[in-house]
Amino acid sequence: MISWKNLDELKSFQELKEVEKVNLREVMSGEKGAERVKNYSVPMAEGFAYNYAAKAVDENVIDKLAQLAEEANLVEKYEALLNGEVINTGEKRLVLHQLTRGQLKDDVMADGTNKRDFYVEQQTKMAEFAKKVHAGEIVNEQGEKFTTVCQIGIGGSDLGPRAMYLALEDWAKKNDTFFMDAHFISNVDPDDATSVLNSIDVAHTIFILVSKSGTTLETLTNEAFVNDALTKKGLNPSKHMIAVTSETSPLASSDNYMAAFFMDDYIGGRFSSTSACGGAVLTLAFGADVFADFLAGAAEEDKLALNKDLRKNPEMLDALIGVYERNVLGFGTTAVLPYSQALNRFPAHLQQLDMESNGKSVNRFGEPVNYVTGPVIFGEPGTNGQHSFYQLLHQGTDIIPLQFVGFKNNQNGNDVTIQGSTSQQKLLANVAAQIVAFACGKDDENLNKNFKGGRPSSIIIGEQVNPRTLGALLSHFENKIMFQGFAWNVNSFDQEGVQLGKTLAKNVLSGNTDGALKCYSDLLNI
Amino acid sequence: MISWKNLDELKSFQELKEVEKVNLREVMSGEKGAERVKNYSVPMAEGFAYNYAAKAVDENVIDKLAQLAEEANLVEKYEALLNGEVINTGEKRLVLHQLTRGQLKDDVMADGTNKRDFYVEQQTKMAEFAKKVHAGEIVNEQGEKFTTVCQIGIGGSDLGPRAMYLALEDWAKKNDTFFMDAHFISNVDPDDATSVLNSIDVAHTIFILVSKSGTTLETLTNEAFVNDALTKKGLNPSKHMIAVTSETSPLASSDNYMAAFFMDDYIGGRFSSTSACGGAVLTLAFGADVFADFLAGAAEEDKLALNKDLRKNPEMLDALIGVYERNVLGFGTTAVLPYSQALNRFPAHLQQLDMESNGKSVNRFGEPVNYVTGPVIFGEPGTNGQHSFYQLLHQGTDIIPLQFVGFKNNQNGNDVTIQGSTSQQKLLANVAAQIVAFACGKDDENLNKNFKGGRPSSIIIGEQVNPRTLGALLSHFENKIMFQGFAWNVNSFDQEGVQLGKTLAKNVLSGNTDGALKCYSDLLNI
Repeated sequence: MISWKNLDELKSFQELKEVEKVNLREVMSGEKGAERVKNYSVPMAEGFAYNYAAKAVDENVIDKLAQLAEEANLVEKYEALLNGEVINTGEKRLVLHQLTRGQLKDDVMADGTNKRDFYVEQQTKMAEFAKKVHAGEIVNEQGEKFTTVCQIGIGGSDLGPRAMYLALEDWAKKNDTFFMDAHFISNVDPDDATSVLNSIDVAHTIFILVSKSGTTLETLTNEAFVNDALTKKGLNPSKHMIAVTSETSPLASSDNYMAAFFMDDYIGGRFSSTSACGGAVLTLAFGADVFADFLAGAAEEDKLALNKDLRKNPEMLDALIGVYERNVLGFGTTAVLPYSQALNRFPAHLQQLDMESNGKSVNRFGEPVNYVTGPVIFGEPGTNGQHSFYQLLHQGTDIIPLQFVGFKNNQNGNDVTIQGSTSQQKLLANVAAQIVAFACGKDDENLNKNFKGGRPSSIIIGEQVNPRTLGALLSHFENKIMFQGFAWNVNSFDQEGVQLGKTLAKNVLSGNTDGALKCYSDLLNI
Repeated sequence: MISWKNLDELKSFQELKEVEKVNLREVMSGEKGAERVKNYSVPMAEGFAYNYAAKAVDENVIDKLAQLAEEANLVEKYEALLNGEVINTGEKRLVLHQLTRGQLKDDVMADGTNKRDFYVEQQTKMAEFAKKVHAGEIVNEQGEKFTTVCQIGIGGSDLGPRAMYLALEDWAKKNDTFFMDAHFISNVDPDDATSVLNSIDVAHTIFILVSKSGTTLETLTNEAFVNDALTKKGLNPSKHMIAVTSETSPLASSDNYMAAFFMDDYIGGRFSSTSACGGAVLTLAFGADVFADFLAGAAEEDKLALNKDLRKNPEMLDALIGVYERNVLGFGTTAVLPYSQALNRFPAHLQQLDMESNGKSVNRFGEPVNYVTGPVIFGEPGTNGQHSFYQLLHQGTDIIPLQFVGFKNNQNGNDVTIQGSTSQQKLLANVAAQIVAFACGKDDENLNKNFKGGRPSSIIIGEQVNPRTLGALLSHFENKIMFQGFAWNVNSFDQEGVQLGKTLAKNVLSGNTDGALKCYSDLLNI
């Protein structure tokens, strides 16, 4: 029987606070440190390993976190989710993004359908559509092949698919599985759509309108903006646009689209990269096989997250170390630092994934919680970040836990040797150096050059950014965030905090304002 | 006589802690709120206003901050900086980035030169060079015009210039002052250079190598990478590359470059957008007039920052409200949220500018401070952020102060009316709505839909992102950060925190490792 308790109601959490703290600088020094790096590593799918040697934990802390995992029924909650229980209590919905990439538990029936069959059917439809586009069977009004795809969406319909596209673009070019250039329009600022439309060949572009509800104001506005631009060029918008939406949305059966692919209410926007929301653009850009590999990688990692042994479950371990840092050690922010240019926008996607999921002050029953929940997440790729905000990470007054990601190989295979090492070696030497510099610091009599150390980090090490590893990496973070939500007893799958702004914006546009809101509207000449 | 005291040694700071706290939700409601929006506004240069109505301050708090500004001699310190005193105590250097855009105080003589003359001379040299490139007088080996410029730099040699280029690209295209496409290579990850080189026409590209010292490892590595690619295409690198560096660097007189433009040790990397570091790429891309306007806008804002009346000095006011939020109210993170797609990468630049300047734990004399200093800075453009991390900002357990930026007009002038309003109106309605939603919240019996409010924000409102306003906006943040550094009594102009990582990375590359560092190197196959 699953027990949904607040974190501070758990005996193991109270005991966790009493466990002796680890002196990270000390345990990471000398041979002890070397032993930690060897031992504090958990294999993940697709050749990844999650290494937490440089986190301020030891066997005592991990033992207590393992008790917490058990007491909070973390894996049982994940199993319940996979089995189709109503885990999104706020909106009374199932949570099925893992089912888009594989079925790990029972059949899930909802709305009279086997949901796994439904997701597979959409993948098949997308694969067939993309094949026809690539083969020149589906063409533009002049009978010419489409060369470009442009997604119109915002939030989860933009950040995840965009980050995944950018992560695989060069890999696909290198591996001859690159079919179409992809672009993205998201912001309601008209300069966004104008700029993108000016940079692409619209006559040979398929636009993908992505809105689950079919009512997202920014997205519908940008659709109208694009339609206007197409019409002005003498093109027929309905011959240039497909829709990704839910079957019940007004877009689903509209004649305005060449085709429609479906997601449903059980896929949250920020978890939708493996649904049709990411599938349409990735399948058109890279082909169905690449998208299938991406899903397969995610499915493999989803499986590992079922392991009840905390030391063998990289997602749950990463999650609980984060809870320990947040609720016991008191750190408020986490930086995500991929040492890979391909993962350029991966931190922006994780920022939404994490902050929108767990930035909550009430538990899943709508009662206030007495502890802090989701941290602020930010990040940029290394080595760029090193020359930017790492100063504060090393010598600032607050401690910011760090999550590094590194790959042994680059994507393009191009490299040069300068001063005895390749660029790839320099990249990796930097991430290794940073972990140790943060953990161990270095004494200097000149305090301005002194490094206190004691700044915790973990690293996920992989072979290369490719479709399968990218899927596994995405799954890792999705499942980490899910486990943290379970530990904090919040509902990670709704986002009521975005509603008030929407309502007030509508009031401004309809002139229904007073007080400060009216004054701001006046100042902005709305 | 200027007194350099720690923040907690100031009488006014101790008194500030005792001033009654403001109930933001209450003071921003109803007509009181409207009055605040009207009154809590400071004119800036170039038509901007800094509005702090939605900050948790009132006349009592501002009075005390004004005392603090006086007691800490904030304006006098800025004057000393302008007059060429050694403000960067750690590196024993002057701090002269404001002098690149105008001279507000005495002549500054250093290294036997009038430094204002030196900066103007570099601007003139860049203008003449760009004019010849644009006119086809300086051409490639085939006698063809250069069409593209590509900057090779990292950190301050990348983030600022890149953010400024992106901010002005569409404006310049619209206003017929667009000459050359610009691209940027920064990361030592070889996939960065490969990807950029694959996307541009290298035979018609001028590369700009930017390194003040001439020794930045990432940048020299990428230079070699680019040279290798040029050579493989049968092109002569020295006919395709210019340098921006200091006169004393090994690059300054090398035959490897078509031309060299100079900065000096008195311009910190993160403050170098208005020096040759930003000037070369912006002048080539947009012409000398645009770069001159950008400098003129910055110079105007620099002037306002000299005002000793806190209520008329937007930079000092913004700075001290930030100090109040950090050191009295206890907030650890600040989000920067421009409602303008053109400012897409402006937050990434501010992240470096702020965190690298003030992420320090020792004061300017190298003594530890007993209070927190620079916050974590992050941000994405609105409305994208609304569909991403705003959930946590509205309903998370921590309060994150917000800095909005909004413009009455877009850059392209393209817009469509949907459901009775333009995209620009929707964009602005959203920012107005967000400020009020964050400040005032909204009660709901269902606590999951409840908004506590009390979340402080300010907004900078301008007419349009153009060269002059962009300069003023940049100056605002540079000077805000300078004043905060003065208030915290830290040296905002060095970055010793980046050194240890560099040293350890070199050790890895030379095989000089043991303990944890050796193990990480092994795991990463370096």
